[in-house]
Amino acid sequence: MNLLIIGSIALDSVENPFGKVEEVLGGSAVYASIAASCFSKNISIVGVIGNDFPNEYLELLKTKNIDIKGVKIANGKTFRWKGKYENLNEAITLQTSLNVFANFSPKIPEKQKLSKYILLGNIDPDLQISVIDQLKKPKIIAADTMNFWIKSKNKSLKKLLKMIDILFINEDEIRMLTDSASIFDAAEKTFKIGPKIIVIKRGEYGSITIAKNFLFFVPVFPLKNAIDTTGAGDSFAGGFMGFLTSEKKLDEQTLKKAALYGTITASFDIESFSLDSLKKMDKEKIETRVNLLKKYTQF
Amino acid sequence: MNLLIIGSIALDSVENPFGKVEEVLGGSAVYASIAASCFSKNISIVGVIGNDFPNEYLELLKTKNIDIKGVKIANGKTFRWKGKYENLNEAITLQTSLNVFANFSPKIPEKQKLSKYILLGNIDPDLQISVIDQLKKPKIIAADTMNFWIKSKNKSLKKLLKMIDILFINEDEIRMLTDSASIFDAAEKTFKIGPKIIVIKRGEYGSITIAKNFLFFVPVFPLKNAIDTTGAGDSFAGGFMGFLTSEKKLDEQTLKKAALYGTITASFDIESFSLDSLKKMDKEKIETRVNLLKKYTQF
Repeated sequence: MNLLIIGSIALDSVENPFGKVEEVLGGSAVYASIAASCFSKNISIVGVIGNDFPNEYLELLKTKNIDIKGVKIANGKTFRWKGKYENLNEAITLQTSLNVFANFSPKIPEKQKLSKYILLGNIDPDLQISVIDQLKKPKIIAADTMNFWIKSKNKSLKKLLKMIDILFINEDEIRMLTDSASIFDAAEKTFKIGPKIIVIKRGEYGSITIAKNFLFFVPVFPLKNAIDTTGAGDSFAGGFMGFLTSEKKLDEQTLKKAALYGTITASFDIESFSLDSLKKMDKEKIETRVNLLKKYTQF
Repeated sequence: MNLLIIGSIALDSVENPFGKVEEVLGGSAVYASIAASCFSKNISIVGVIGNDFPNEYLELLKTKNIDIKGVKIANGKTFRWKGKYENLNEAITLQTSLNVFANFSPKIPEKQKLSKYILLGNIDPDLQISVIDQLKKPKIIAADTMNFWIKSKNKSLKKLLKMIDILFINEDEIRMLTDSASIFDAAEKTFKIGPKIIVIKRGEYGSITIAKNFLFFVPVFPLKNAIDTTGAGDSFAGGFMGFLTSEKKLDEQTLKKAALYGTITASFDIESFSLDSLKKMDKEKIETRVNLLKKYTQF
């Protein structure tokens, strides 16, 4: 099976108590695809970069077997994000320069229109819908979103929710989306709009995956050297969808494992700025952490 | 084995979005002992009440086989606490009337001085120490504490920590105690002071039990009808210690089960104001929830 990932490709500048990096590789499509590449060898991404985008970053994607035919090189500068963390959990955006991303209109290459698994990174829901409209026979469509779209594009977002199978969303955001105090109530209300599977991300407290008669809690993998959480949600979604793509089924055990691989994948992202640690992740390292997490949660 | 529980016996008035109750049964020793009574038939409590304390509440403790010889009836009014919750998690104290509790000086009956398992509810650390000084051959001493004592009785609290085996503490409090950003760092620093087992309570996110080379995450049992979290921490500690008392060992599997029974016990508390739901908890109901939690966490 193949996995198509749509999202941002960015140059990030991040400052936090552990250090500072300038214009390093980032973006939801990048984090998610590198995360997924450990699970599936059939991944393609769609995004846009400027003609200032460092070639070494494209090379990295290629060495991970990620098909970049859908990455458009536009005249202008690459999307840039600058953020500051006072602690590990909350990013304060200092600057967003959309640049070529401002006119991003995802065009799916012919071959990728047949993709079975789709991950729509956190972008304008209208663009997410435009991707779905181009697909020919998708099997599982997943989407991420954020508070900004819940507020500014609520109608489009609700239209999108009717078209997708899996929603990745933060706990505060699903409460906001449904005007609920409880995340379980919020999930019930969201099911009525569309998605059959909801993955609620709870930052340092892990995630809850909810489906009909199904509930699964995973904590965050405990790290001594947590450095930077930028991209953690995208890495989670990438690991989750990468694993699903590698399986042929979507039963309860598979869903549990996807959530588990999502959390483990995110743990590698968090160990460094940018993708320095994530890009070195391999199956052996993943399984070591899965076995530890088993010890920490199984009774 | 027997379990001795020291703490407050109170009349609580609570107001939250779900309703309002006035002068109902509460207090750390009460919540913890009723919670523990499902696991062990050999429980005694030490506390103080005024001569206005309703007899029916003493009867409830007796029907649960809880030995109340250590409950002193003093001249005056029973300790009263009045609180308000704007959501389920944060209590705002409106009024604390210590009454007879102001002069509480725990006196352990001769027979109970031989208790093997001890749970020191969240009271002044000097009083917790005075209890330990009266014990003859304790096997496992556990204590709960709170931010108020960390600030106002830091020296006494650190002395207490050297004398105990298990510490129950909220995540914000253990960070405050050790001036750490990470709860894992905080746990490492706390181990250096004394306790061998630390149970970090994370409110709606569950708990982490930490010991040397041991880490165990348990989520909160998901409830559709969460009503009032007053006493949840005490119920958790009561269930945890009640289970330990019923076992003869303290290996990893036992510790995991104790954390599990702690969280399940707390879930019954949360379903009602006061102890209305907790007092109806039985082994069958507990096991039903344990099996569900197994489904929600095991892969």
